[in-house]
Amino acid sequence: MAQKGILVVVSGFSGVGKGTLMKRLTEKYEEYALSISATTRQPREGEEDGREYFFRTREAFEQMIAEDALVEYACYCDNYYGTPKAYVEEQMMAGRDVILEIEIQGARKIKEKFPEALLLFVMPPSAAVLKERLVGRGTELPEVIAARLKRAAAEAEGIEAYDYMLVNDQLETCVEEMHTLISCQRSRVNRNLEFINRVKNEVKAF
Amino acid sequence: MAQKGILVVVSGFSGVGKGTLMKRLTEKYEEYALSISATTRQPREGEEDGREYFFRTREAFEQMIAEDALVEYACYCDNYYGTPKAYVEEQMMAGRDVILEIEIQGARKIKEKFPEALLLFVMPPSAAVLKERLVGRGTELPEVIAARLKRAAAEAEGIEAYDYMLVNDQLETCVEEMHTLISCQRSRVNRNLEFINRVKNEVKAF
Repeated sequence: MAQKGILVVVSGFSGVGKGTLMKRLTEKYEEYALSISATTRQPREGEEDGREYFFRTREAFEQMIAEDALVEYACYCDNYYGTPKAYVEEQMMAGRDVILEIEIQGARKIKEKFPEALLLFVMPPSAAVLKERLVGRGTELPEVIAARLKRAAAEAEGIEAYDYMLVNDQLETCVEEMHTLISCQRSRVNRNLEFINRVKNEVKAF
Repeated sequence: MAQKGILVVVSGFSGVGKGTLMKRLTEKYEEYALSISATTRQPREGEEDGREYFFRTREAFEQMIAEDALVEYACYCDNYYGTPKAYVEEQMMAGRDVILEIEIQGARKIKEKFPEALLLFVMPPSAAVLKERLVGRGTELPEVIAARLKRAAAEAEGIEAYDYMLVNDQLETCVEEMHTLISCQRSRVNRNLEFINRVKNEVKAF
């Protein structure tokens, strides 16, 4: 039987480039399945239902909660965000590694439910670089920028719960590091007990 | 300040090729420091004091125990085996990754003392391959072979305590995998708290 897929949580400050990272990783390595979250927030310009998010009404979302159809969900800035369960389970059973790009609250819930999940946190090379990215092209309203900076500070809480951190300095390097960190999990002893026990029993029978 | 080195424990069945693996790994990557164990067993033909082992009398060994000069020690086939503390600590403080090639009893003690140590277990591709290697060139006495096979069975107990397993099928592949597994530990969140906290505090001050 194929090994069950690995559940990977990727978090990081907004502005750190998680979206681009995920896009490049899944382009380069087809073995990864990127889970799409459901949310009650309004789609932003250019976002499509079923691509960036599954956009749902509050009623529909609460229905999913009631039906236990979410692996985790959290309320963030007055909107629900959650991970639909069916996709994650199907892909993992098929041996594909599933990546959830979620924030810290959700990550903690995942770790409780799936202690073997791999939690990755993406860091900027420095706070100054992050600020530059958040302030951006200078086309945003000062209050939008202020809100972003405030949000970044909130996102800094709880990094300690993660397993590994990656620095997103060079995109390709960071993608390779992420791929390596995930691939290494295939060698975990507790993911290979079938093989280990078979060899062990055969050795004992020598 | 440079990151503290990683403490790596490598175990595996006798006959699995640990010695050759360690030799190739440390030849190829100079950043690794291979710890040499002390033992009270007799040197075998071709073994040199300070290269394969520090060969010590029982009295000298018990003196080291009394002086708390060993990171761990165990009694195995009526002989003491132990890891001298000074070398391990010096190398780790200098940022070098230290590799201990020890058996399961010692590995457990290391994990208790150093929960962040990385425990690797080297597996043969199959039990049949291991048996072939243990039976060897057919030049050994039947009772020597029988003892080896019995020992291999004993070594199979406790693999579950290890973090990762590696299959030593192709030497170079296995060396690369080992290097990758060790290198990944540099990205552990709890090894990067200084950097993380600095960025975190700067972000909060935005």
